[in-house]
Amino acid sequence: MKISVIKVGGNILDDKASLDQFIESLSKMNEPFVLVHGGGKILNELAKQLTIRQQLVDGKRITTPETLELALMTYAGLINKKLVAQLNAKGKTAIGLSGADAKCIISKKRAVNGINYGEVGDVLTEKTNTELIVQLLNANLVPVFCSVTYSEKGELLNSNADAIASALAKALIKNHQVKLIYCFEKNGVLHSVDDENSVLPTLDSLTFNILKQEKKIHSGMVAKLDHAFDASKNGVKDINIIHANYLTETLQGNTNGTCITN
Amino acid sequence: MKISVIKVGGNILDDKASLDQFIESLSKMNEPFVLVHGGGKILNELAKQLTIRQQLVDGKRITTPETLELALMTYAGLINKKLVAQLNAKGKTAIGLSGADAKCIISKKRAVNGINYGEVGDVLTEKTNTELIVQLLNANLVPVFCSVTYSEKGELLNSNADAIASALAKALIKNHQVKLIYCFEKNGVLHSVDDENSVLPTLDSLTFNILKQEKKIHSGMVAKLDHAFDASKNGVKDINIIHANYLTETLQGNTNGTCITN
Repeated sequence: MKISVIKVGGNILDDKASLDQFIESLSKMNEPFVLVHGGGKILNELAKQLTIRQQLVDGKRITTPETLELALMTYAGLINKKLVAQLNAKGKTAIGLSGADAKCIISKKRAVNGINYGEVGDVLTEKTNTELIVQLLNANLVPVFCSVTYSEKGELLNSNADAIASALAKALIKNHQVKLIYCFEKNGVLHSVDDENSVLPTLDSLTFNILKQEKKIHSGMVAKLDHAFDASKNGVKDINIIHANYLTETLQGNTNGTCITN
Repeated sequence: MKISVIKVGGNILDDKASLDQFIESLSKMNEPFVLVHGGGKILNELAKQLTIRQQLVDGKRITTPETLELALMTYAGLINKKLVAQLNAKGKTAIGLSGADAKCIISKKRAVNGINYGEVGDVLTEKTNTELIVQLLNANLVPVFCSVTYSEKGELLNSNADAIASALAKALIKNHQVKLIYCFEKNGVLHSVDDENSVLPTLDSLTFNILKQEKKIHSGMVAKLDHAFDASKNGVKDINIIHANYLTETLQGNTNGTCITN
């Protein structure tokens, strides 16, 4: 089967016009796809209202038990069900899932190694329940994954949505043809972070490492690209990092955003 | 197939000891079952923290758009995923769903008739996606439904969890043998609301109507029984209203709580 794994970032979810256009693009897709969403910005807003302080280390969230509850509320509840309803309203039949549901996405709680990230799970690709995901796709359903995962010890854990998309692509590539698309609010990987016209049309791992050392690529983008190159090294050959507004064009094979090459 | 539809009330979810015992009982079940949960108490706590005022009319919640978001957060997110994780940890494989997921439970927004209940949906039994539910059960999964439903107009709506359990039982009875069990924090339907020893071992609709007129049964219990008798009238013959602690005994066929007879 040809399967697209599409990740959408929090800044798109938070912008009505971009989100509507994105949902419209998804609704026109004829091939099976899986959607993975973040939502950190919406979590931050709720945390602020509830005066639950959020701590970041190098741009990475420390997930206290209280913050995990916020993740369950915003990622698995509010955002996930709204996306499902919007896709349904556009003629798709979506099914929203966390990693705990049908034990779909299994992670391992991150060991304390200098920094205690708290209730954070690193995804175990080999444990992904691809069987169920493929069954859902065969039944013409659209699985919509939030970034809550589940450990074999029974824990609900907060995981990086980019990592989940990468893991899904890596797990599905064994028996399927997989396209991995990271959609966000920028035009692609930028050579100069403030210049939307400086999109790198392709990026290989060697160039990535140089740009990383030169600090031209930093913070969240480094993590995203690490997950993208990880998928690439594990056999996923069709990986694009694009502005969410250009999803339709990218699916039609038109050059857009940044194409990851190994 | 023999299917049990089990509804659990918010006061059990809120009490760790009762919830643990309840999950333990569920984990020992060998026959397929569907779980439906409420969670109004937990929603109320979040509403209080966020200073979102809750309005009730005759014990029924008015669901403003803000309150619907609280329902998505608490019912579909926090409570649903915690229940899924707890069942998984006890050896089951649960899958948490709202009515929007795979368009499983369809409702119709309640018309304004004197009172505007807001974003509230009355469940349309005949539109229930029993095909998917049975597929999940055949795959040895435990569907866990929160009380968020979905309208054919694309709306997410707040529904009564007792009504959802009743609708599921009514929809499934067409092709299956169905047992409907309402679990809550009381020993059954009480003749005197303050006397836990005044459990009515059986209740027929005639007696129910008399007790209702005498105001011996009132508020939330009337709604629960209306839904129970509705299921009974529609062919569901095995209906019990019990304390959650006695689930195992009830499943073993031991007399417990209140048995609904037509």
